[in-house]
Amino acid sequence: MPKYVDHHARRLLVTEVAAEIVAARGVEALTVRAVAAATGFSTAVVSHYFLDKRDLLRSTFRAAANRSTSRFESAATADRRSVVSCLSALLPLDDDSRRDWRVFVAFWGTAASDNELAVEQRDRVRSARGRIEHVVAELTNAAPGDPELRLVARSLLTLVQGIATQAVFDPADWTPRRQSEQLRLGVAALLPGTAVRAAS
Amino acid sequence: MPKYVDHHARRLLVTEVAAEIVAARGVEALTVRAVAAATGFSTAVVSHYFLDKRDLLRSTFRAAANRSTSRFESAATADRRSVVSCLSALLPLDDDSRRDWRVFVAFWGTAASDNELAVEQRDRVRSARGRIEHVVAELTNAAPGDPELRLVARSLLTLVQGIATQAVFDPADWTPRRQSEQLRLGVAALLPGTAVRAAS
Repeated sequence: MPKYVDHHARRLLVTEVAAEIVAARGVEALTVRAVAAATGFSTAVVSHYFLDKRDLLRSTFRAAANRSTSRFESAATADRRSVVSCLSALLPLDDDSRRDWRVFVAFWGTAASDNELAVEQRDRVRSARGRIEHVVAELTNAAPGDPELRLVARSLLTLVQGIATQAVFDPADWTPRRQSEQLRLGVAALLPGTAVRAAS
Repeated sequence: MPKYVDHHARRLLVTEVAAEIVAARGVEALTVRAVAAATGFSTAVVSHYFLDKRDLLRSTFRAAANRSTSRFESAATADRRSVVSCLSALLPLDDDSRRDWRVFVAFWGTAASDNELAVEQRDRVRSARGRIEHVVAELTNAAPGDPELRLVARSLLTLVQGIATQAVFDPADWTPRRQSEQLRLGVAALLPGTAVRAAS
């Protein structure tokens, strides 16, 4: 037995494995038993971290949302950042982000008729919008809190969510190239000056 | 016993009742038993129309998609139609369309890890895009099949889907007024001339 257990690392590992399960086999397949089998932990250990299946699902969603936020923040602090590069970080363009989008959509399926879980998604969108607003303000020299900036940030997240939810169900049509093209087109329409910069 | 059973009407009724169940209580609550109880039919009658629970779910989704298409077609053939009025018909702006959007999102939750069901959503999006393309061509005098028109139709459906998926989880923020405002803003950005016409 190890003297010291890194609970944070364990929780992270469990939620990452849980994301794989949900992305591949759906919410129904997400059980303490399945997670235990996939991680090698006992069911007792897995149960230690989650109240019940619903809590496990919520934690899996939150972890996926946190990964998405990290990708955005990396893009937003990169040297050659643009509105397009930051928003691209939110799209399902690689294996990790594709898996996380499947987790989001699977979670929504449950959250659509579960007010408490719906609040998770609502708050995630609201905070993502705040981050987009912040980055756009910085890159366009707009004043934070400017009403037009708010509308644009709202439109930009709408664009991302519209692209991603289609890409999940039609990856053959919504290739990374097409997702990027649609993103650029949308940004160009909503923020003409920035888009030119972003496309260069 | 009635001499004549209107199977089409029965199926329609069953899928409408099933939509209420899915919208209110989720996919898990959608059982032959629950549908029978809510319609007053016996479980034998309900089972007659559907192979299994998955087929019931698929039929429920298809019926909701058909209702959405009908709303779009009504708007698209109205006298004072505009791109905005047609796309508005796809948004969750009233009780019926809100219920149907909850059905879509609940269905997606299952379809995200079920290739056969995912194809249903994929095809629904592809045909909706075709209808949008058709209407926009008509209203803007663009040539059907024009590559730019295709891109715009794609962007418009992306806009609708982005708005609707947010509205499902945050109806307090995404009031009908705000949905319409965001729709007009998006259409104005993507189709400047049409948007002015639409807003008048």
